[in-house]
Amino acid sequence: MKEIALGIDIGGTNTVFGFIDREGICISEGSLPTQKHADVENYLDELFQLIDTAKSNLAYDIDIKGIGIGAPNASYYTGTIEQAANLRWKGSVPLVELVQKRLDVPVYITNDANAAAMGEKVFGAARDMNNFMVITLGTGLGSGIFANGDVLYGHDGFAGEVGHMIVRKSGRECGCGRKGCLETYVSATGVKRSVYKLLARHNGGSELRDIPFNQLTAKMVAEAANRGDEVATETFTYTATILGEVLANVVAVTSPEAIFLFGGLTKAGDILFDPVRKTLEENLLTIYKNKIKVLPSGLTDNAAVLGCAALVWNKKK
Amino acid sequence: MKEIALGIDIGGTNTVFGFIDREGICISEGSLPTQKHADVENYLDELFQLIDTAKSNLAYDIDIKGIGIGAPNASYYTGTIEQAANLRWKGSVPLVELVQKRLDVPVYITNDANAAAMGEKVFGAARDMNNFMVITLGTGLGSGIFANGDVLYGHDGFAGEVGHMIVRKSGRECGCGRKGCLETYVSATGVKRSVYKLLARHNGGSELRDIPFNQLTAKMVAEAANRGDEVATETFTYTATILGEVLANVVAVTSPEAIFLFGGLTKAGDILFDPVRKTLEENLLTIYKNKIKVLPSGLTDNAAVLGCAALVWNKKK
Repeated sequence: MKEIALGIDIGGTNTVFGFIDREGICISEGSLPTQKHADVENYLDELFQLIDTAKSNLAYDIDIKGIGIGAPNASYYTGTIEQAANLRWKGSVPLVELVQKRLDVPVYITNDANAAAMGEKVFGAARDMNNFMVITLGTGLGSGIFANGDVLYGHDGFAGEVGHMIVRKSGRECGCGRKGCLETYVSATGVKRSVYKLLARHNGGSELRDIPFNQLTAKMVAEAANRGDEVATETFTYTATILGEVLANVVAVTSPEAIFLFGGLTKAGDILFDPVRKTLEENLLTIYKNKIKVLPSGLTDNAAVLGCAALVWNKKK
Repeated sequence: MKEIALGIDIGGTNTVFGFIDREGICISEGSLPTQKHADVENYLDELFQLIDTAKSNLAYDIDIKGIGIGAPNASYYTGTIEQAANLRWKGSVPLVELVQKRLDVPVYITNDANAAAMGEKVFGAARDMNNFMVITLGTGLGSGIFANGDVLYGHDGFAGEVGHMIVRKSGRECGCGRKGCLETYVSATGVKRSVYKLLARHNGGSELRDIPFNQLTAKMVAEAANRGDEVATETFTYTATILGEVLANVVAVTSPEAIFLFGGLTKAGDILFDPVRKTLEENLLTIYKNKIKVLPSGLTDNAAVLGCAALVWNKKK
């Protein structure tokens, strides 16, 4: 009987689950829309029906050794999701307890960026590292930090909210209710906002002038930049410069061996990575200079689900 | 035979050593000027003569179980002091190796702020905490961070340089060669610089107008503030506001249970702590609000040497 870990990545839009073996191979996966059910028990009913079906469709028997869950505002310590702005389940949801009632195996939960960091450690490019950081660049900016060989959860399980470091006093409005948070500048949404800031400032032509804000995607901006569009290029430089400056400050706290960038925005490639590396080095304290690698994530397919499953395998070494 | 740890705190001005028992009692201490010897072996000759004399002067025999050293730019991993700007020994000094040749017991070294954090954990107010931070406010600003129950050393042993987070772009010149570092604002020296900034800005009377920069101390500013001097009071508010803002950002990285302030500047009391707490709360992300204590260090006498000795006792639990 093949031993597997069940990874469940609960995103604002979709929930993706997968059966992941010890080598990080995903032998089956499935999904459902996270927002379909207002009641979390109804959501879990459908999710576990899908999981049972996927299990019975396999050509061989599997033994589920544990479940790892990534979810917004999830606390590793309490096993709960706390007031997640992007989910329909309000207040404090004791997800680990609810899942364990359905399948009595070890269940771990943490936020998606911590899961990404665990995935990088167990299956990705950080297997030999004990101190590193993963920055997830999606709609927002998440961060997962490894220190002394383990995820830095902090006192309450909520460490690693680098996306909500305030980087511009009285800056852009953030979904968290404050102003000037890093993720309002450095994220897919931040890139869109910066395009409009720069279109307002500059006078010259740009293919981006024909696209309404609500239709613009960070991918379009990256493509335009790679075609030589000046506003698009400057947008990535602006974004990467802010990220590099802030990472230099975060390095002064945690001193990592490497910083991995993860998520859709990293597909932009050199136009993102080059100015991040340059600005980081320019702003580092001397003792950190020329030491810290800025790398793309070593996880590609099923990255989110792999990270969740890694929460299980990390405990079963 | 009484078991003790030998703590050695190497400061820019003085080196202080002490014999510390498991309960944190200092049974004997001594000192010598750190800058007296240009050669580190000559320095260690005199230091160990003093230690031997102190040992033979005791009324009973002691068994030295280990040595803990706090020093600027010291790496826990390599046992070296690296290019310390304030010491006469240049380059990389293999201090652990040199000390171990003289006394063959376990020898640990780290920077003074990490030692302070270890002291807080073993002997101070953080005995029951696994995630906390100590900010040392002296000539500069040091930081020692506990995460997951241990000092956060980072990849190279140099984590926790919060004093060199850049908090004002193109701000005050720092001894590190860059501009705008936190310690140029928040430290005894930072307080002095802020006094002169505010004396330049304001027109009114202040007792501080009669004191030349080189004679002014942060203690004088605190005393003037407590007598109601407006410039002195505003200086502490200004200092504490910057510290509170930056701590809110550091909390988003490490999520500590408490932040301890340590060092001479903390004797200023409420005029420092109150605005730090207020600004911290105002700038925290919602999930951290009303959770994080800002406290004075629980260590009083022999605090630096206690912290060094704690490096030994922490390993012998």
